Amino acid sequence: MTIPATQHEASGSTDRRGLTVLDMTTCLRRLSETPVGRVAYFDRGEIVILPVNHVLDGVHVAFRTTTGSKLGNAANHGAMSFEVDNVDLKNHCGWSVLVVGTAEVVDATESARLESLMASSWAASDNSSWVWIRPSEISGREITGPR
Amino acid sequence: MTIPATQHEASGSTDRRGLTVLDMTTCLRRLSETPVGRVAYFDRGEIVILPVNHVLDGVHVAFRTTTGSKLGNAANHGAMSFEVDNVDLKNHCGWSVLVVGTAEVVDATESARLESLMASSWAASDNSSWVWIRPSEISGREITGPR
Repeated sequence: MTIPATQHEASGSTDRRGLTVLDMTTCLRRLSETPVGRVAYFDRGEIVILPVNHVLDGVHVAFRTTTGSKLGNAANHGAMSFEVDNVDLKNHCGWSVLVVGTAEVVDATESARLESLMASSWAASDNSSWVWIRPSEISGREITGPR
Repeated sequence: MTIPATQHEASGSTDRRGLTVLDMTTCLRRLSETPVGRVAYFDRGEIVILPVNHVLDGVHVAFRTTTGSKLGNAANHGAMSFEVDNVDLKNHCGWSVLVVGTAEVVDATESARLESLMASSWAASDNSSWVWIRPSEISGREITGPR
C-alpha cells in the first residue's frame, strides 16, 4: 500500500488565500466520514467530474462504477482525483480535502473486502466493479468563522 | 455569448447506467439554484478539484478566485469543468450537472456586473478576480427512488 507524499505545507499554517492547512490525520478522517465526494478524470481532452459514494481503505479512496463506463475505462489508465468538502456560506466556513493520484481497477479478492466496508452505494448495479485511487498527494484546507 | 453544444442524449431518456438525462432548462436551473459547486482544472499534470461559490450568468458559470493563485492562473489557458450535485444516499436518489468548457478571466466591466449577482462569496478577499467558464457542453443526470 502506497503512502501519499508528504504535504508541501506545514499543517496548521495558512496558505496564500488565508486558508488553514489541514494535517494528514484530519484529511483522512474527513475522507472517511464524508460518504459522497466527487471524482475527476480526463475523457477525450475534457475533464469529467462525477459524484460517487466512496469508502476509505487505508489511504485509498475506493468506489464502485459501472463496468465499461467512461469512468470505469478511465480507471484503467491515468490520473484521477477525488474531493470531499463541506461549505457553509451563511457562516462563511468550510473545508475541502483533495486526493490526487492514479486510478486502478480492483481485483476480485479486494473487491469483496471493499464491498463489506460500504453500507450503501450511489447508482449501484450488478454490472459494477470497484476502482480505487492510489494517492500521490492528499491535502486539505479549512476556513473558519466570518472574515 | 456562446451557446453550449446540444446534448448528445435526448432529455428524459436513460443512459447506460440507468440514470435519467436532464434537459438543458433543468441543468441551468440547478446550476443557478445551487450556490456551491466544484471546479476542476489541470495543474502540472494533476487534476485539481476545489469547491467554489458561483453564480450563473446566462450559460456561464462565474466565480471569484485569488489573483495569482493556481486557479487564477489556470483560468488564463485551458480546460476547466464545473459540477453541482445533490445526493441523498438514504433514499437512493440524487442528481448532478456537469459543465465542460474553457476558463477565462473576466474584464472589469463584466466583473462589476457579476459582483452584483453574488450574495456572498466563499473565501473572498480584496485580492480576487472573476473567472468564468465558457461552456462547450452542459449535461445532467438524475436517479430517483429506490432501485
